[in-house]
Amino acid sequence: MKKIYFEDFKVGQVIELGSCTVSKEEIVSFARRFDPQPFHVDEIAAGESIYGGLIASGWHTGSLFMRLLYDGLLSRAASMGSPGQDELRWPNPVRPGDTLSARGLVKELIPSRSKPDRGLVRTVYEVFNQDGDTVMTMRGLGMFRKRITKNT
Amino acid sequence: MKKIYFEDFKVGQVIELGSCTVSKEEIVSFARRFDPQPFHVDEIAAGESIYGGLIASGWHTGSLFMRLLYDGLLSRAASMGSPGQDELRWPNPVRPGDTLSARGLVKELIPSRSKPDRGLVRTVYEVFNQDGDTVMTMRGLGMFRKRITKNT
Repeated sequence: MKKIYFEDFKVGQVIELGSCTVSKEEIVSFARRFDPQPFHVDEIAAGESIYGGLIASGWHTGSLFMRLLYDGLLSRAASMGSPGQDELRWPNPVRPGDTLSARGLVKELIPSRSKPDRGLVRTVYEVFNQDGDTVMTMRGLGMFRKRITKNT
Repeated sequence: MKKIYFEDFKVGQVIELGSCTVSKEEIVSFARRFDPQPFHVDEIAAGESIYGGLIASGWHTGSLFMRLLYDGLLSRAASMGSPGQDELRWPNPVRPGDTLSARGLVKELIPSRSKPDRGLVRTVYEVFNQDGDTVMTMRGLGMFRKRITKNT
């Protein structure tokens, strides 16, 4: 499969990232290690919380999205990592058994001024559950190697 | 220990969140599950990358920060979760054996207009390694229950 470089991204491009299903066991085990708030780890306390049941840690949702981004894009791309993310939001909770699907919309392509071998791709990412509810949105920053490099 | 409610936060307050050490095994095992880019999982490929060695996934760094936030604040607070985070940045990589420490600076307190039982706390969080290098910054949003509730 052809590798994806900075030059291969186009503004307006939609990138479908596939889907995954999250189990109760995974929600609880991730949260026990990283985010043991009652509504993430304790089914009874979660039922009495404003969420009405167990929900995934936002960092777990973000990490599951990251895996979809890897499988759907980065595994085939000349990725050089990311300087960060903007406007990360979790508008609806992720619950046990949910199937999450993700997609990206490329918004801006910024060749690096100081490093001619790479460029930054700004992409809006959205993650949905099986009912079409948005569970995460994010303005992502991704650094990718250029295919053709000047001055090197 | 006294529980922390929305009314207990003050603008300008510094919240020390403690520290943790991250092992090579944990960096690789987190990344194998959620972010298997070569510079997170493959020591040789990582050595040849722009990072010069294995580095933690940004989502792993965020999740480790989340645990510090839980242990240092949320475990004692009337937390109701978070709608999201802004300006998440990873200015320097996290490497095997690094000891990370985190702190928050409270910037703004916003009582909910529609829900009188809660309020939003805007906090700038910073995570440092043992050399004082900043490895993560973030403008966090946290929802907390009020101690005194009108109209309920």
